[in-house]
Amino acid sequence: MNKSKFSGLKAIYVNCTLKKSPRVSNTRGLANVSISIMEKEGVDVETIRLIDHVVPHGEEADMTEHAEEKDEWPELFKRIIQADILVVATPIWLGELSSVARKFIERLDAMSEKQNDKGQTIYYGKVGACIVTGNEDGIKNCGKGILFSLQHIGYTIPPQASTGWIGKAGPGPSYLDEESESADHEFTNKTITFLTYNLMHLASYLKEKDGYPSYGNSEEKWNEGERWKFEKPDH
Amino acid sequence: MNKSKFSGLKAIYVNCTLKKSPRVSNTRGLANVSISIMEKEGVDVETIRLIDHVVPHGEEADMTEHAEEKDEWPELFKRIIQADILVVATPIWLGELSSVARKFIERLDAMSEKQNDKGQTIYYGKVGACIVTGNEDGIKNCGKGILFSLQHIGYTIPPQASTGWIGKAGPGPSYLDEESESADHEFTNKTITFLTYNLMHLASYLKEKDGYPSYGNSEEKWNEGERWKFEKPDH
Amino acid sequence: MNKSKFSGLKAIYVNCTLKKSPRVSNTRGLANVSISIMEKEGVDVETIRLIDHVVPHGEEADMTEHAEEKDEWPELFKRIIQADILVVATPIWLGELSSVARKFIERLDAMSEKQNDKGQTIYYGKVGACIVTGNEDGIKNCGKGILFSLQHIGYTIPPQASTGWIGKAGPGPSYLDEESESADHEFTNKTITFLTYNLMHLASYLKEKDGYPSYGNSEEKWNEGERWKFEKPDH
Amino acid sequence: MNKSKFSGLKAIYVNCTLKKSPRVSNTRGLANVSISIMEKEGVDVETIRLIDHVVPHGEEADMTEHAEEKDEWPELFKRIIQADILVVATPIWLGELSSVARKFIERLDAMSEKQNDKGQTIYYGKVGACIVTGNEDGIKNCGKGILFSLQHIGYTIPPQASTGWIGKAGPGPSYLDEESESADHEFTNKTITFLTYNLMHLASYLKEKDGYPSYGNSEEKWNEGERWKFEKPDH
Repeated sequence: MNKSKFSGLKAIYVNCTLKKSPRVSNTRGLANVSISIMEKEGVDVETIRLIDHVVPHGEEADMTEHAEEKDEWPELFKRIIQADILVVATPIWLGELSSVARKFIERLDAMSEKQNDKGQTIYYGKVGACIVTGNEDGIKNCGKGILFSLQHIGYTIPPQASTGWIGKAGPGPSYLDEESESADHEFTNKTITFLTYNLMHLASYLKEKDGYPSYGNSEEKWNEGERWKFEKPDH
Repeated sequence: MNKSKFSGLKAIYVNCTLKKSPRVSNTRGLANVSISIMEKEGVDVETIRLIDHVVPHGEEADMTEHAEEKDEWPELFKRIIQADILVVATPIWLGELSSVARKFIERLDAMSEKQNDKGQTIYYGKVGACIVTGNEDGIKNCGKGILFSLQHIGYTIPPQASTGWIGKAGPGPSYLDEESESADHEFTNKTITFLTYNLMHLASYLKEKDGYPSYGNSEEKWNEGERWKFEKPDH
Repeated sequence: MNKSKFSGLKAIYVNCTLKKSPRVSNTRGLANVSISIMEKEGVDVETIRLIDHVVPHGEEADMTEHAEEKDEWPELFKRIIQADILVVATPIWLGELSSVARKFIERLDAMSEKQNDKGQTIYYGKVGACIVTGNEDGIKNCGKGILFSLQHIGYTIPPQASTGWIGKAGPGPSYLDEESESADHEFTNKTITFLTYNLMHLASYLKEKDGYPSYGNSEEKWNEGERWKFEKPDH
Repeated sequence: MNKSKFSGLKAIYVNCTLKKSPRVSNTRGLANVSISIMEKEGVDVETIRLIDHVVPHGEEADMTEHAEEKDEWPELFKRIIQADILVVATPIWLGELSSVARKFIERLDAMSEKQNDKGQTIYYGKVGACIVTGNEDGIKNCGKGILFSLQHIGYTIPPQASTGWIGKAGPGPSYLDEESESADHEFTNKTITFLTYNLMHLASYLKEKDGYPSYGNSEEKWNEGERWKFEKPDH
């Protein structure tokens, strides 16, 4: 296998830390391990640190239409929708994904009424995964919230698409702190590697196939009355 | 597109109702809508009603080795692992998936140390989804628990892979009760159709590709020291 | 029982809608049912619509110390900490509490290092509950996130402290829409009543007792070496 | 404060391990830290290891009425309902509470239609908490599921009512393994102490008050038409 296999792919990593630049983001620290693999494999990688942008809370495509002075979301969305691969990276606060991650998902969801040219939800044919960091406890809980949301709006989820790093129960060092010994943490190193490659493999497959056929999953066709082999139950 | 496109696929639906046969299972009622589509498309469909089998709680492959008199799990597992598609169907109790669904996931997880001939977790190359029913509230919460578990052990999750039926907040009619008007519930009918077709499309892709290449995701190779493009972070 | 029983109590309702005033908030609509009971019982009730205030994301007590121009949180916190009763009201988005609710909890959590004069976490002796609205699905999931967070930082949770209104699976009318028939929804009316009275009863008890004795739960004393009857396990 | 303050209280700890006696239960190991405090404070403590009993899955009070040959639940329930304090202890599997814990909650829930002599749900006036152990990740997620369920059926939740022990991300030693160094884990030792005392304090208060007045929370009275200060909204 050579590098060129993945070289047409685009990935975007959205860091949902609560800390604005230039403060240190441990979440970005861990995401870098994955980014570095993708770049070496020839994937075109972009990153967004959402907290550095003016993105209001809201359930609409553009919140300047709802009394917000500024909304960078429409511009950010253009970058996100061009990528084949979306990785959501979040810190853990009180066992949950950050409010920035939640806001990001709400804004993604608000765009899910858009359709591609097959009449499918616009995220069809793209793949998603998540990376989670904290001092303690919550990787899987954050992961299930993010992955559920991604598939719900149309992303495909490859195997083992959630990973992270945490220390023992209770307060303790963060990922980038030397005493965390995280750089040598075999479990995190292995699972982030698998996650990264599975994203690339599955994105390649879906790109090669031009996403999914519209047979059986097109909003547009359903609305026109097409039902394929669905039959109304007669219970 | 003709029927034969999906005709080599095998699917298995595991109904995690708390009610033994011959009691009515609303969960099976909803699963039937999906099963019916698959059968018309030529997929070979099997079903398991887990509560009808002697499957002890446990975290091991065969609990007869841990003082249980009987354990049908090893036999059931053989059927599950032959299927390309796994659909977990669960009722909602107190907002959560059933204890039978939880037990099913624990038993699946206990097998996840097994590897395929590429050294990957044994569920690689298969696709999964879930169907949820209740009187009230909890479809997405059950869905996120099930889909997270499935991807964690190696299943791939297609777009819009969680669906269900519930009534309004509070007690009320069940899916198969006539006053539920569920047979005409457009949202459930549409989403279960999309889920069903997306499972078939993605299972076809993965079957055609013989699952995932082992490049970047093989437990066996990682254990032998292979790291592909992963590099230990130097923070 | 007369009105005066509860007349010394203060309650604060924090509405975590994504919509700024003067847009209609269905969440506030449902909260009003509870507020109305409290007011008739003589409780002093305040409300905050968080989205109407400048409250940045963040994990610190005052984010103006971290490059934010403005942060109304310190002022809002003064009002919250004076109340005996906190009710968190949230809409459901994609099955989850709103990003505003998540941000609110993060900011509350950031204050939880503060102690009262017994050396306990500052929220000890107060009671909390939640009210959830959506078109569809997610009351219990939102409720478990909110109630867990509240008890974690020191609130006491009375019986049946989570309620809400949703319609059937899929898009549909909102709480305040006439076709929702929510005003007559027995389940929501009953459970919001019970929630409201249980908050008042339990807040009265705790007020009468001046919260909890510091015996066995004081951060300050633990840090000084007090262990009460705790003994280090010798496994 | 002397021992006798808590001496009239009864507590029951339900261990939801997947392992039958006499296998080692790490969950029981951690619960013992709390049990030991209660016993020294004069509380009457009982324990149940649910997996050692024949308790079928089910949503009814007695599953022998639904084709099960044996069901020890009715006898176990008598012991549970006599206790003022309920502690649910669970291991973590795949980030979630065990299927035994889920089954336990389902069976508790099935009894929640029973009422006390005030017409309240039968669990009113009792307090609950949870203790969680695993190799890795999931304390808070398990905690939120358990605490939500307990308050939903009528238990009161004291401050800081969820605690546990886990190691770093990924496989690793269990609580009772010496290399876990768990006996010296300050965070777990402190939080389990606080949890234990808060249970005793709150149980004392509620016992002294004979639970909650029926004003505003009685199922019986609501069904008879009493509405207290609730008024139907006129939106």
